[in-house]
Amino acid sequence: MKLREGVEWAAHCCINLSWVAPDKAVKAARLAAFYDLPAAYLNKQLNALGRAGIVSSQSGPRGGFRLGRGPEQITLMDVAAAIDGSAQAFLCTGIRHNGPAGELGAPDGYRTPCSVSRAFSSADLLWRRQLAAQTVADLAAEVRRANPAAPDYVRHWFDRN
Amino acid sequence: MKLREGVEWAAHCCINLSWVAPDKAVKAARLAAFYDLPAAYLNKQLNALGRAGIVSSQSGPRGGFRLGRGPEQITLMDVAAAIDGSAQAFLCTGIRHNGPAGELGAPDGYRTPCSVSRAFSSADLLWRRQLAAQTVADLAAEVRRANPAAPDYVRHWFDRN
Repeated sequence: MKLREGVEWAAHCCINLSWVAPDKAVKAARLAAFYDLPAAYLNKQLNALGRAGIVSSQSGPRGGFRLGRGPEQITLMDVAAAIDGSAQAFLCTGIRHNGPAGELGAPDGYRTPCSVSRAFSSADLLWRRQLAAQTVADLAAEVRRANPAAPDYVRHWFDRN
Repeated sequence: MKLREGVEWAAHCCINLSWVAPDKAVKAARLAAFYDLPAAYLNKQLNALGRAGIVSSQSGPRGGFRLGRGPEQITLMDVAAAIDGSAQAFLCTGIRHNGPAGELGAPDGYRTPCSVSRAFSSADLLWRRQLAAQTVADLAAEVRRANPAAPDYVRHWFDRN
């Protein structure tokens, strides 16, 4: 079980975008250069964020990406789902319907999920809730607490570039 | 983010093994036939469970697999980790060390994980704890509650086969 690498990239780009001036759009190439990331691949992640409304983009010489809504309205779950999809980690393929297991049948006609599937669903829900409780604003505030120079550094770097 | 399909297979095989007589070993081909699963691939999953001590195997005409310890001592997390590995879903590749981000540095020299990594770690921990709170005995009891005929059906099917 592995989240796509782009989740880390996208989360940090959202944090950085929360620090640039609201009227400033940042090009994918600049967002990528800040971390030495491959720009074309990051651009794909940014477009996925765009489809989820997490960033908005505009084309043209002054175009680029900015946050699509306030950083306090974007959760880490939003970012993870935009990049990695929102399917559960555990996929029940319903093996209990097959072969002799299927011949056994069940009083409820197997209408309710089995115990294994339910256990994974409840774990999955806890995972999602935890990520949904963390906003980009929270994450940015934590970075700022650990490194007070970060917001200005980021803002000026993107202003100059 | 997707758990390997073998996790579902392995969990159900552990439940079934909890219902066969303790002195009876069940061959991979029989465990597979119960759900119409490909035997060679299930055998790989069973060997992974064996390496984790979740099942024990013996060779020979009366050989096969049995639980390696009591079903109340095997958690769904044990099974998931044996089949899917125990790495966290989120892999921090440390992009903040690269490029201009790396030049910024941090007062703590980046010795502590960043906020993104910490948020995923805490979600991951909740996921693991939830799965670690569910034993094969719990899962088997739930199946039995939903389908009281299941344990005897399974036991007799493996006795006959």
